[in-house]
Amino acid sequence: MRAAVLGAGSWGTVLAALLADNGFAVTIYARNPSVAEEINRRRTNAKYLPEFHLPDGVRATTSLEEAVSDREMIVVAVPSHSVREVARSAAPHLCGRPLVVHATKGFEPDTLKRISEVLAEEFPAFLTDRIAVLSGPSHAEEVARRSPTAVVVSSKSRETAEAVQSHLINSYFRVYTNPDLIGVEIGGALKNIIALGAGLSDGLGFGDNAKAALMTRGLAEIARLGMAMGARPITFAGLAGVGDLVVTCTSRHSRNWRAGYMLSQGQALEDVLREMGMVVEGVKTTRAAHRLAQSYGVEMPITAELYAVLFDGKDPSRAVEDLMGRGKTHEMEEIVEGWLNVLGE
Amino acid sequence: MRAAVLGAGSWGTVLAALLADNGFAVTIYARNPSVAEEINRRRTNAKYLPEFHLPDGVRATTSLEEAVSDREMIVVAVPSHSVREVARSAAPHLCGRPLVVHATKGFEPDTLKRISEVLAEEFPAFLTDRIAVLSGPSHAEEVARRSPTAVVVSSKSRETAEAVQSHLINSYFRVYTNPDLIGVEIGGALKNIIALGAGLSDGLGFGDNAKAALMTRGLAEIARLGMAMGARPITFAGLAGVGDLVVTCTSRHSRNWRAGYMLSQGQALEDVLREMGMVVEGVKTTRAAHRLAQSYGVEMPITAELYAVLFDGKDPSRAVEDLMGRGKTHEMEEIVEGWLNVLGE
Repeated sequence: MRAAVLGAGSWGTVLAALLADNGFAVTIYARNPSVAEEINRRRTNAKYLPEFHLPDGVRATTSLEEAVSDREMIVVAVPSHSVREVARSAAPHLCGRPLVVHATKGFEPDTLKRISEVLAEEFPAFLTDRIAVLSGPSHAEEVARRSPTAVVVSSKSRETAEAVQSHLINSYFRVYTNPDLIGVEIGGALKNIIALGAGLSDGLGFGDNAKAALMTRGLAEIARLGMAMGARPITFAGLAGVGDLVVTCTSRHSRNWRAGYMLSQGQALEDVLREMGMVVEGVKTTRAAHRLAQSYGVEMPITAELYAVLFDGKDPSRAVEDLMGRGKTHEMEEIVEGWLNVLGE
Repeated sequence: MRAAVLGAGSWGTVLAALLADNGFAVTIYARNPSVAEEINRRRTNAKYLPEFHLPDGVRATTSLEEAVSDREMIVVAVPSHSVREVARSAAPHLCGRPLVVHATKGFEPDTLKRISEVLAEEFPAFLTDRIAVLSGPSHAEEVARRSPTAVVVSSKSRETAEAVQSHLINSYFRVYTNPDLIGVEIGGALKNIIALGAGLSDGLGFGDNAKAALMTRGLAEIARLGMAMGARPITFAGLAGVGDLVVTCTSRHSRNWRAGYMLSQGQALEDVLREMGMVVEGVKTTRAAHRLAQSYGVEMPITAELYAVLFDGKDPSRAVEDLMGRGKTHEMEEIVEGWLNVLGE
């Protein structure tokens, strides 16, 4: 079997290695020629994954045509703002009916569309039911070390989800299926906002109690918008919801957490992004979710405060204080508002 | 206003200080005379809270009668196995209709009753609707530093919950009410089991991905038993559920996590408990939950594996492997089984 991975960031690189472990011949598409050359010559990708060595079954190319032609599976692992362009360029070179799995946690910035919607628009209609999303608590650095990890695959088509599952699963990578494509995509995208907030909270010297309260309210906020957009609430109690939220808010590997931490130390947003040198999806997702919350009429207090910090110059400590000191005191009003409709209570 | 705090462990000591901050005259009941003396002479409780100084409004006594007589509020903060004995001894000395708030996260070991049930049995019937529980993500060490914290109070009586709320709330301690007494008690008790498992996982060198998967499944397992026992599932999405779970599984302050970590290093259970010198509620709660799961016919795989490690000598790494490698692959079966009934799906 042959697979292509589009995007040579940390997650794309690790997914390529995983597929090679599973017996696939894998081609990584890297936009940057020096990254492709480093992968082919030294089998490393030092910028994104120091000390990691790719297995022999992986090779890199800067030609999208070469990467995707004659492949049974295409993994899309590029930043949310590049998905449409990459998909559009790749589409003419696809052969047959490959599985298309994306691992991009965000929304398309301008249209606010989910990534699977963007792919469905750019790929031929007969591929729509071949599109799936991969999400869940999965820091690339740990999968690179073959540390046990559990993830979720979702698709409109159960057959597609199960085919992707069977290709990705192995002894250290446990893949579950979940029929709620919308919820799995939204959970993965929105948790990055809460991770930015968690980094702010930690950086300002608030403790674990405060961060746990923030994450609890963050989960409710994610579920509220998700449900308004058609997700099943139960998905947010699973790996793509609480699981991914926990790992992103509490792990030292999380770049969204780190960006929040750096902001709390008084660094300007542009400086933080430049210094990190990697895409921080949570920044774009905060803007997207803020607009989505308005258009769906959903209250998202954490997103609103982060939006004010990131784009309106609000002082981070003022923002966290405003979050802590809100008016309501009955937990069901505050924490779980939106969930209740579904439970019929 | 006058309050008594029964129990001079870390949480009891901090709650006494909090009440003093809120203007109460507070008496702490300490069984150990040297602890009472240290509190009265030096205003410290060094074994449980190094570097903490109690405010002047707090004094300690070894007389339960002196502690509880003529008090508007009694806070019960003793270990789960001592609640009945302490309540029974205190009952004859109560005056009027004090509020009774417990902060004990566990079940009575022999009867498997919830703590509020034990209190209702031991106190006069006219106090039953004065009983409340305090729970949520609240490491004592952080409340001692007045770090912002959000907690939940629940009671069968809304009036009681709101009275307790008004007594405990202040600028750093945000108190929400929740009508689900059963769920709030169960969430606080059961998360200690998952924290033991998280300590095992971390101690065995599994990563953050694995721990997040464990916590996700742990939350589902808590919700399953809770619902069988009459709790509202939505409570487990709040501070007493996911909030407390997160803080207990990821914070360096958690003694249940620490006990799991020490077990993973090959130490025997008795040695771990002796070395810690404090009550590790999760050990007793694992035994209680294992029996409750059987009597309610609920599947609790994490609890079952921990029970085998703690009481049947199972090798910790075998237990974690068995948890990672289970058969089901459809997330809705695995993660959220029990929740679905309630959602009517």
